[in-house]
Amino acid sequence: MKLSYFIIMVSVLNIVSLDLYAHMGYKNFLSLEDAKQIANAAHARAQQENWNVVIVIIDAGGHLIYFLKMDKTMLASNEIAIQKAKTALFYKRPSKVFQDRITDGESGILSLPGMLAFEGGLPIECNGHIIGAIGVSGVTSQQDGIIAAAGLVGF
Amino acid sequence: MKLSYFIIMVSVLNIVSLDLYAHMGYKNFLSLEDAKQIANAAHARAQQENWNVVIVIIDAGGHLIYFLKMDKTMLASNEIAIQKAKTALFYKRPSKVFQDRITDGESGILSLPGMLAFEGGLPIECNGHIIGAIGVSGVTSQQDGIIAAAGLVGF
Amino acid sequence: MKLSYFIIMVSVLNIVSLDLYAHMGYKNFLSLEDAKQIANAAHARAQQENWNVVIVIIDAGGHLIYFLKMDKTMLASNEIAIQKAKTALFYKRPSKVFQDRITDGESGILSLPGMLAFEGGLPIECNGHIIGAIGVSGVTSQQDGIIAAAGLVGF
Amino acid sequence: MKLSYFIIMVSVLNIVSLDLYAHMGYKNFLSLEDAKQIANAAHARAQQENWNVVIVIIDAGGHLIYFLKMDKTMLASNEIAIQKAKTALFYKRPSKVFQDRITDGESGILSLPGMLAFEGGLPIECNGHIIGAIGVSGVTSQQDGIIAAAGLVGF
Repeated sequence: MKLSYFIIMVSVLNIVSLDLYAHMGYKNFLSLEDAKQIANAAHARAQQENWNVVIVIIDAGGHLIYFLKMDKTMLASNEIAIQKAKTALFYKRPSKVFQDRITDGESGILSLPGMLAFEGGLPIECNGHIIGAIGVSGVTSQQDGIIAAAGLVGF
Repeated sequence: MKLSYFIIMVSVLNIVSLDLYAHMGYKNFLSLEDAKQIANAAHARAQQENWNVVIVIIDAGGHLIYFLKMDKTMLASNEIAIQKAKTALFYKRPSKVFQDRITDGESGILSLPGMLAFEGGLPIECNGHIIGAIGVSGVTSQQDGIIAAAGLVGF
Repeated sequence: MKLSYFIIMVSVLNIVSLDLYAHMGYKNFLSLEDAKQIANAAHARAQQENWNVVIVIIDAGGHLIYFLKMDKTMLASNEIAIQKAKTALFYKRPSKVFQDRITDGESGILSLPGMLAFEGGLPIECNGHIIGAIGVSGVTSQQDGIIAAAGLVGF
Repeated sequence: MKLSYFIIMVSVLNIVSLDLYAHMGYKNFLSLEDAKQIANAAHARAQQENWNVVIVIIDAGGHLIYFLKMDKTMLASNEIAIQKAKTALFYKRPSKVFQDRITDGESGILSLPGMLAFEGGLPIECNGHIIGAIGVSGVTSQQDGIIAAAGLVGF
């Protein structure tokens, strides 16, 4: 078999397999469509509970993809929701982990840069890779966490 | 007529008139529903033109209500779209006004705080009051301006 | 053929093809090894020219992967090199483009957020995707540009 | 003896003595070569332990000389490693000192500017003078401290 045939075959296999990957749900980045799906699921739950919140979706580099603020949510929630999402992304764990460490008396973590020690920020993972994060703020941190988790159900 | 009856009457009239106001399209603030309607109209036009952009809606205080970033839009557009919306809101005029003044040689305006001299930011008005702004970035500033204007059609 | 055999075959093909991808030079992120190779090539050229510079490599989200400051380089170059790399990444083009637009009299671009209008910042691309950027500062912007370009030769 | 001869003699002695100083290992500033030696020793130990970390070397003024981020290290480590190095330099002591004081209940130190209360930042000293600092972040603070110390062995 000639080399050129081999290269063509490999290329075709690559395209086919990447396409299959997509069909199998593999994602290496978070699209606007993904972000909307997650945020809308979270928003629907917030409406159902009658809780006013800000919902934020960021990409793997920490940049905004999608943001919505429900009416009457306090202004502080804009920045809090962003910082919760960044905490989950930059530290590769739910922001609740830091809230629990504070509760356990580990006040030294308050010196960590860009860390917000409240529930409501979750990494968004796909096939073991973190491809973004969701952040929610507006009600109690436990309720914010419920809304954030609702966003990731079915994703 | 007793004072208490009078107070009740005035209260009822107030409620009725506010309701009429709402039915007549009067808004004294931009709701999430409004923001989504404007952003979705802009987004639909961007998709039709096959232009990738960031679309931002801010409230009367300059705070984010709604934000979406189409896939493949350059990262710089996140901040640019926000700054265009803020320019339109804080200076009560389309951001294009400043682009034109630069073109006319008035470079001194570059010292104006929080001013971005490119088309794509528009105030959102209702009954003569500015209640927010839209900012768009991602393609040429003229194209960004077309998308921003499309958002306000029918609002 | 049973479905399970099919799934196994697809999985094997995926692994094989991704491995081939890697062998064919496809990268979807910039590794430390990549960053060092690029920075070392730039550094070697700077030493050859006897130019003292800062060399910065950032990832697709704008975060530092690798940074080196040659002795005697002015302190300002630390931040300039980072901003040149970010300009190239966030605006998806060489930072020289903005220097040229300023030279052509388009002073309005000075209001663009996070934009540094000097040569020396280049996007790092692989298979048509921007996966990071290099920034160089220390000598003239033209010389900085020569060092940055030398980094990308052979990558 | 004429004054001019005297001046020449002193100059020659200065040059000779500075040269002797250098041969005796005296350094009054941290060169890129020094920074790379320290960082590479730390990096080698991190690879040996299979720990992913960011390693930072700053000069006597707190400015970056050298920075490397191993693949898969969490993004937060970029800023944490820099802050650990700055804590060690600005406060002239290992950053672990502050972690220990927090553990001892002295939470008031959280108000100290630019202080990060976690192990992993060490001053770099030469002949009793602090000429820079190393900061490491990515694993536990104790492990970060082991990597930082490994960098200084043999320097």
